[in-house]
Amino acid sequence: MGTLLDQRHLPALARGCAVLAAGGEGDLHLALLMARQALEEHQPVALVSPDELPDDGLVMVCGQLGTPLVSLEKIEGGDEGRRLRECVEQLWGRPVVALMGIEIGGWNGMLPVTWGARMGLPVLDADGTGRAFPEVQMMTMHLAGISASPAVMTDERGNLIVLRTVDNKWMERLARASAVELGGSASMATYNLTVAQARTATVLGSVSLAMRIGRALQSPDGDPFDVLVRTVGAFRLVSGKVLDVERRTTKGFMRGSVVIEGLGDDGDRLVRLEIQNEYLVALEQGEALASVPDNICVVDSATADAISTEQIRYGQRVTVIAFPSTPVWRTPRGIDTVGPRAFGYDFDYVPVEERLSAMGYSGGSSLNARPRSTPRRRFQA
Amino acid sequence: MGTLLDQRHLPALARGCAVLAAGGEGDLHLALLMARQALEEHQPVALVSPDELPDDGLVMVCGQLGTPLVSLEKIEGGDEGRRLRECVEQLWGRPVVALMGIEIGGWNGMLPVTWGARMGLPVLDADGTGRAFPEVQMMTMHLAGISASPAVMTDERGNLIVLRTVDNKWMERLARASAVELGGSASMATYNLTVAQARTATVLGSVSLAMRIGRALQSPDGDPFDVLVRTVGAFRLVSGKVLDVERRTTKGFMRGSVVIEGLGDDGDRLVRLEIQNEYLVALEQGEALASVPDNICVVDSATADAISTEQIRYGQRVTVIAFPSTPVWRTPRGIDTVGPRAFGYDFDYVPVEERLSAMGYSGGSSLNARPRSTPRRRFQA
Repeated sequence: MGTLLDQRHLPALARGCAVLAAGGEGDLHLALLMARQALEEHQPVALVSPDELPDDGLVMVCGQLGTPLVSLEKIEGGDEGRRLRECVEQLWGRPVVALMGIEIGGWNGMLPVTWGARMGLPVLDADGTGRAFPEVQMMTMHLAGISASPAVMTDERGNLIVLRTVDNKWMERLARASAVELGGSASMATYNLTVAQARTATVLGSVSLAMRIGRALQSPDGDPFDVLVRTVGAFRLVSGKVLDVERRTTKGFMRGSVVIEGLGDDGDRLVRLEIQNEYLVALEQGEALASVPDNICVVDSATADAISTEQIRYGQRVTVIAFPSTPVWRTPRGIDTVGPRAFGYDFDYVPVEERLSAMGYSGGSSLNARPRSTPRRRFQA
Repeated sequence: MGTLLDQRHLPALARGCAVLAAGGEGDLHLALLMARQALEEHQPVALVSPDELPDDGLVMVCGQLGTPLVSLEKIEGGDEGRRLRECVEQLWGRPVVALMGIEIGGWNGMLPVTWGARMGLPVLDADGTGRAFPEVQMMTMHLAGISASPAVMTDERGNLIVLRTVDNKWMERLARASAVELGGSASMATYNLTVAQARTATVLGSVSLAMRIGRALQSPDGDPFDVLVRTVGAFRLVSGKVLDVERRTTKGFMRGSVVIEGLGDDGDRLVRLEIQNEYLVALEQGEALASVPDNICVVDSATADAISTEQIRYGQRVTVIAFPSTPVWRTPRGIDTVGPRAFGYDFDYVPVEERLSAMGYSGGSSLNARPRSTPRRRFQA
């Protein structure tokens, strides 16, 4: 068996999940408290690789669907995981051998650990995005041709919904409508798959990566931003303060934007981030600095703690970073599914490193690589 | 076996279902065409009483959920009934022995005949309301303590949803949200029950009643309104022309109102009908002439054909009638569930015959019983 996750691993995991979340998927503090309680009341959780499980074993892929804001006040009842597992086992006619988070980013990266402790199930060291994305069809399993059907949803009251849809986009529509009616969010098991399928259809090692990021940030060897350069290959887009936040919760999503005013070397610059649960694009003077599927992350300028789309507020001193997405999202099918056009933007995806290099952004992945001599307000040389 | 329903029965059934619909549940012309085609392509359908079926036989209770307007353009795919039946049989682990309409009023009174012909299943001579009501918990099965769970929904594309809810009001909420997302209406099987349960938890004989009303209207013995007096105990509320119609489709319901200006003996009178899919209340000068659960029906003044909430339009010459509801709706639990307060009105239910009699409306159930000497604008003596 691989790592046995216990209380000591949780803070690092939470911190790493926040960095990988691209700002989305809820309040990590609450997720951390829930995981702590579950591990305290039950048992440590085995973090396993597919090689430690039988090929035909059934993996329940679980997460919270809905708008991040709601999860702050609408707490789990505690029985959701058990109820989903029972229904999944009935639908598949065999036992669940492990849990996997639908995405590593945010709340959903912690949830399998909480549920695994309660149910005595191992957690697969993998997820379905390598980050967080807002919609059900935005999963690596979707790219691999795995159906989101049948999916199961439940809420803290005990309502249970089984959805069988003609395709994964209908799953998004029907699951979203149910989540909205259930109060804005719901627990869900979807894209449940075999261990053999998980080997090629998921982002492997992402739980370990999250813990590695978190641990490195906990005791940074020098500047905490250097940690992000080393662990995820981050680029610094801008440092400044939050000038404006516009946010609304509508139709099961949080949508809005954030404007960051550069400070210091970035004085005179204005960078706008647009949001659908996650930070989707970073724009400066109408041009993209970075976009989905690459991960745009806002961190506290002092501590490098990630700041989610629902925590960000006026006046915060922040640094916006971006880093390359999991390679599968950079394939043509990946870009079709989660590139800027999939979110309604009228421009093509360009990998963040190419985009910045074309803008004369030198020094590769150094966070302070922006040449100080470039004209203000643009990255152009 | 009871009656074998064939093409000859359909027009009378459609006409009767329209009268019992209280204006709700869709376009009977389309429902009639669908039933005709099904009987032509398949077989006649046995209309049976519970005594002709085994007590523990499973009855699938089916209907269309959604807003009536949508059914005009969003036609069945043809496989919905089969898909629901398969899923219901799987959930219950035994075969369906008969179909029952969730309500006799409108489209849902014809649907079991169409599906019964396609699937070779008999139709139970019963339904769940004796009329039509807009919400899932407004069923006699709900009063009898039968759960709407598990319910199954499907659409013309092939999406399938199984709902298990903590109570029947949650069923209404979640089923409505899904119906809206599926395009405004969906096919549903809910409150599925045994033949023994159907004996006491449904409105028995309602399919026969609908056909009796329809037949009597087809070849009226004298004034067609006398037919309605004889068959359902109707009272005439007002005759006139439609002065104004306000209608909107929102959140899975049609809502709105109709104003009728009296003509002839009813000159100077204005009667307002309020709508949630069905006609809920008839008001004159702010006072109720009739209300749910009693059936308010608008008929063509010349032919006594029922006019639904989505067919009614400016200028039509109409007569508004009201008739007593099925007795179970007049019990305290019935009034709690479908009385005026259940629809947000701030007045108590008074049976239509008592209300009119208190207003000095003499002559009992005669359609022309309103004394000609009463002051205009009110029923008061």
